[in-house]
Amino acid sequence: MLKIPEHQVAGHQAQGGKLGPLVDDSGLFYKPLQGGDRGSHEVAFYTSFYSNPKIPPHIRRFFPKFHGAQVLEASDGSGLLSHLVLEDLTLTKSNPSIMDIKIGSRTWPPHESSEYIEKCLKKDRETSSISLGFRLSGLQMYVPKETGFWKPERKSVQSLSASEVGLVLRKFVSSNTSSDCSFAQAVYGGPYGILSQLLELKAWFEDQTVYHFYSCSILMMYEKELASQENSSHGATIKMIDFAHVADAGGVIDHNFLGGLCSLIKFVSDIIATPNDPTNVVERIF
Amino acid sequence: MLKIPEHQVAGHQAQGGKLGPLVDDSGLFYKPLQGGDRGSHEVAFYTSFYSNPKIPPHIRRFFPKFHGAQVLEASDGSGLLSHLVLEDLTLTKSNPSIMDIKIGSRTWPPHESSEYIEKCLKKDRETSSISLGFRLSGLQMYVPKETGFWKPERKSVQSLSASEVGLVLRKFVSSNTSSDCSFAQAVYGGPYGILSQLLELKAWFEDQTVYHFYSCSILMMYEKELASQENSSHGATIKMIDFAHVADAGGVIDHNFLGGLCSLIKFVSDIIATPNDPTNVVERIF
Repeated sequence: MLKIPEHQVAGHQAQGGKLGPLVDDSGLFYKPLQGGDRGSHEVAFYTSFYSNPKIPPHIRRFFPKFHGAQVLEASDGSGLLSHLVLEDLTLTKSNPSIMDIKIGSRTWPPHESSEYIEKCLKKDRETSSISLGFRLSGLQMYVPKETGFWKPERKSVQSLSASEVGLVLRKFVSSNTSSDCSFAQAVYGGPYGILSQLLELKAWFEDQTVYHFYSCSILMMYEKELASQENSSHGATIKMIDFAHVADAGGVIDHNFLGGLCSLIKFVSDIIATPNDPTNVVERIF
Repeated sequence: MLKIPEHQVAGHQAQGGKLGPLVDDSGLFYKPLQGGDRGSHEVAFYTSFYSNPKIPPHIRRFFPKFHGAQVLEASDGSGLLSHLVLEDLTLTKSNPSIMDIKIGSRTWPPHESSEYIEKCLKKDRETSSISLGFRLSGLQMYVPKETGFWKPERKSVQSLSASEVGLVLRKFVSSNTSSDCSFAQAVYGGPYGILSQLLELKAWFEDQTVYHFYSCSILMMYEKELASQENSSHGATIKMIDFAHVADAGGVIDHNFLGGLCSLIKFVSDIIATPNDPTNVVERIF
């Protein structure tokens, strides 16, 4: 029985009879293959990634499990369409807080057409990609005692300034819509926290010369209700998603992704270091 | 007594009656202020950098010493002109091997005009900046038993592929124009070698949110004749130069410079790890 995913925060969504991903009860996530060669390119990436012996096993856990491709009725009723079959990342989570962060100041692969590059560059400049090295693509935060989820409009989170992004990352681990950072240590910190996972990914990116991940996102997820209970696992996890624009690395590290990842790491480290200091004073030099 | 520097490998040069930097016998380097606001911007950077308490003292050694600005007769005979007064970095070196590496896949600051950005982006795409995260801007290598210096045309080194850059970086620490990497360990390796210095700079770039260094270069230098003698210091050093396009960091790390720096570090580390393997086989995934 296919249905619309409850917790999607970015990308095309199937609501309102549109084309978007579907999920089933067994924990699978069906993503319609994107137009042009993007869809087949994403299938090729997953196939390559899971068969490449150069990918260390501990890195695979940062990627959705892959179950091939399958033809099924599209969510917009337009007929049969090929779908990527992936792991449903939010299956076991009841009220996940989720942030989708598109990494890299440049979202276009070098060999794209000038028209495509111009379109991407315009968006990279209008959003925070160029300035921060990443942009928020979407987010939802569970607010227990209030309205359930806070899910700001996607357009509004893409162009935040450094101090605004800092504030959103603080709110993300706060007990309410203020920024008390109650869960900063539990979610971002510690040996299994998000910072530790980001640093593990960073160490791989400093070395890997297999793929360049353009326009790819990191999902950060956890369950706020469980974070507030002692001795329970809130499941703070990062996952890489969206591989329609992955390119061959050509013997070079992915300096574009790595730079953006280091920028995100700096924001998260600062919050762990000073959870009670949301001022984020930005000093101007010139 | 002002004269034309012997060992300049990139930038405008004073030879043939053109406008370029001059040096004197006391160890000073006079760089004509660039046109537009670039010259005054570079003076402002040096002034800010050397008076900013946020810059750790151990990082200052990677920058030329600064002695203010001074008006003197321009090298092209066009009259009096303001010059930056800097340390002459090659003063004590008799036959330095030098590489000028412009760091960053993007050489333009975000707030520049569309016309300027388009010009820079075109050059970043035509050279190796976009693909490698840096480009060679110029180099000279001392070849003891042959012709003295090997100084390839600057145009020809800007657009090298990953494997070509790897080869040039191998030749740079080789005893002749082949790539035996005789001096890889002595020059790149060890606690005072170039890799160790690059890693120190990297640690600072992972944290500093003061400046963004666009279109800035790292100079790598050493003396090959001394590297071949035991127990003598060959002076392997890195220096940051060219600050006409430094921008305010706006509370964010310089992810663009850091990404390119990590890419260079990967090339240098690979040479230390496998000095006898110049094959640089690049596997294609797609």
